[in-house]
Amino acid sequence: MKRSFIREILEAIDEETISFAGGLPSENLFPTQDLKEATLKAIENPKVYQYTISNGINELREQIALRYTNEGFATTKENILITTGSQQAMYILAKFFENKDITIEEPSYLGAMNIFRLNNLKMQGVKLEDDGVNIEEFEKSFKKTKLTYLIPDFQNPSATTYSSEKREAVCNIVKKYDGILIEDSPYSELYFDKKSKYISASLPNNSFHLGSFSKTLVPSLRIGWIRADEEKIKSLLIIKESIDLHSCGLSQYILAEYLKDEVKYEKHLQEIRDDYQAKAQFFSKALKTIMPEFKHQTPKGGMFLYGGFEDKKIDTFALVQECLKKKVVYVPANQFYIDKVPNSEIRFNYTHSSFEQIEKGLKLIKSCL
Amino acid sequence: MKRSFIREILEAIDEETISFAGGLPSENLFPTQDLKEATLKAIENPKVYQYTISNGINELREQIALRYTNEGFATTKENILITTGSQQAMYILAKFFENKDITIEEPSYLGAMNIFRLNNLKMQGVKLEDDGVNIEEFEKSFKKTKLTYLIPDFQNPSATTYSSEKREAVCNIVKKYDGILIEDSPYSELYFDKKSKYISASLPNNSFHLGSFSKTLVPSLRIGWIRADEEKIKSLLIIKESIDLHSCGLSQYILAEYLKDEVKYEKHLQEIRDDYQAKAQFFSKALKTIMPEFKHQTPKGGMFLYGGFEDKKIDTFALVQECLKKKVVYVPANQFYIDKVPNSEIRFNYTHSSFEQIEKGLKLIKSCL
Repeated sequence: MKRSFIREILEAIDEETISFAGGLPSENLFPTQDLKEATLKAIENPKVYQYTISNGINELREQIALRYTNEGFATTKENILITTGSQQAMYILAKFFENKDITIEEPSYLGAMNIFRLNNLKMQGVKLEDDGVNIEEFEKSFKKTKLTYLIPDFQNPSATTYSSEKREAVCNIVKKYDGILIEDSPYSELYFDKKSKYISASLPNNSFHLGSFSKTLVPSLRIGWIRADEEKIKSLLIIKESIDLHSCGLSQYILAEYLKDEVKYEKHLQEIRDDYQAKAQFFSKALKTIMPEFKHQTPKGGMFLYGGFEDKKIDTFALVQECLKKKVVYVPANQFYIDKVPNSEIRFNYTHSSFEQIEKGLKLIKSCL
Repeated sequence: MKRSFIREILEAIDEETISFAGGLPSENLFPTQDLKEATLKAIENPKVYQYTISNGINELREQIALRYTNEGFATTKENILITTGSQQAMYILAKFFENKDITIEEPSYLGAMNIFRLNNLKMQGVKLEDDGVNIEEFEKSFKKTKLTYLIPDFQNPSATTYSSEKREAVCNIVKKYDGILIEDSPYSELYFDKKSKYISASLPNNSFHLGSFSKTLVPSLRIGWIRADEEKIKSLLIIKESIDLHSCGLSQYILAEYLKDEVKYEKHLQEIRDDYQAKAQFFSKALKTIMPEFKHQTPKGGMFLYGGFEDKKIDTFALVQECLKKKVVYVPANQFYIDKVPNSEIRFNYTHSSFEQIEKGLKLIKSCL
């Protein structure tokens, strides 16, 4: 078991290095003043410092449930389990399904793949196309595994968003084999055009839906959640409380306080979307100018831009070692494949760098080619 | 796998119930004003809201390391891994040692036992005496398992503190078989008389030493740590980052800010010790008056008072169901044994109730006998 390439990079690089590697949200967009006010309000009550229940505090679960219900996905606080970031949600599920087979997209989220390995889940990769997984391949795999992990909105790393046709097809296959969908949705709110319907909304009793405040508010509070039917939540609770008793209470009370003002949160989300959209377009344009041999789609949401060199002989894993010397870094896409064989693809994060850094960073990469 | 009795109780009881069950610190002793100041200072820098490294922030690891070093146990920040409460420290270690055999005290900490079961560790119980484990039994078991989990200071649940002779004996046995000691120390600072030397201090390369701010400051921030040699910390890091990437960043920065003033922290610790000592003495005296048939030692630190009824036929697991109806609760000691056979022993938490509640609660229990 090796450490995550991204976590190792995050620790190794210095402040001067331009990083397109991590999934870091932009610090400039953190609503620090509003969070400060929420914090001051929350800590008026000393109970915010005491142990709390393992599910997570009622207020926060109710607010999360309300957001689902408002989108037409009927949900109560009993359907919500607060987790220490979405990462822990994944760990809890991997522990719950340990030793099982699981169908995943290829490429897929590195952090999830590491967790699956650690809990001895056997991964079967299905090719991800421009509008979602290849449905034929997916059914062939799911028929056997009856368990799948998908990121249908602005997928990490590929930025792919499933078409409504493929959402329906996946839904029908999960129903047909009475299996389980784990739908990971950290980027769903970061759409530039419109929000897609969660696949889980049509599979309320055959799904775990994962959400997080790390990409929409701030990551350091480490608050994510799992939405599932009540019985499933109860089963997961045993694992959750074994892992850390409960997620940071202070963080939960701060978020519950902050979320009381729905209008404020919506306005904040729109600010992020506008900012990220401008960044995505700038990054894509800069790529076309500086490195036209790198083929990609302009992202429609999320935090990543994904593509590959026309010249398939370029090994982006070898290239990143050169880039690191010149103080620029990205994630070579072999990391997102089960077998990790080097290829010519790259995942760029575009949300954390300034326009100047984007241009400078891409020129540095170009100079390493 | 069942849920923890204590966690279930915490969720089931209402506000009127007098609880001697959980290990809840007293809210009256939370340094809320100092934490508020530390919080305001910490959030001046927006980086407190960004992702951070999985080990935990440097400042906090340095401060924890310094406290060890000041006690004669040479430690640097590379020896420290920040965890989401001491509970997660235990989970990480259980995952690290999964499927292995482990020697534990009987009775032992319920939360740890549940984690060991979840990770398929096979537990061998060794009888806990008034001054620590029975050494002969311990060597017999450790010879085979080469791994042990002990709580030498104000043990949970028994309140037992190891004598210096037994600390040395355990240390020698761990050395003799070149095994591993997991030393859990959440209560070490809560001594009424003097602090004992950590066994790990004589076994720096054969131990994991676990600490927490949950009992000395506030639990909800969920910050604990593991102290071990650098190589071991590196191995654990892979598991830590898989579980939740990193522990709450805001909590870490608040604590690092708070701990800058060592004198303030020491003064705070002394306040807790004084308060808990008064509570322990009151609880013990009330027991002798109200329920003289319950035999126990007055605690010398920590958060628990442990004992048993002279009449061994009293089943405290059955009794607690009656007590719950009268709105008072404690933890029946069968929960702390591997086989969970009912017995006549009880663990009382004395830190979270007022003097009035202690008297009222004990009278209610007496009325159920």
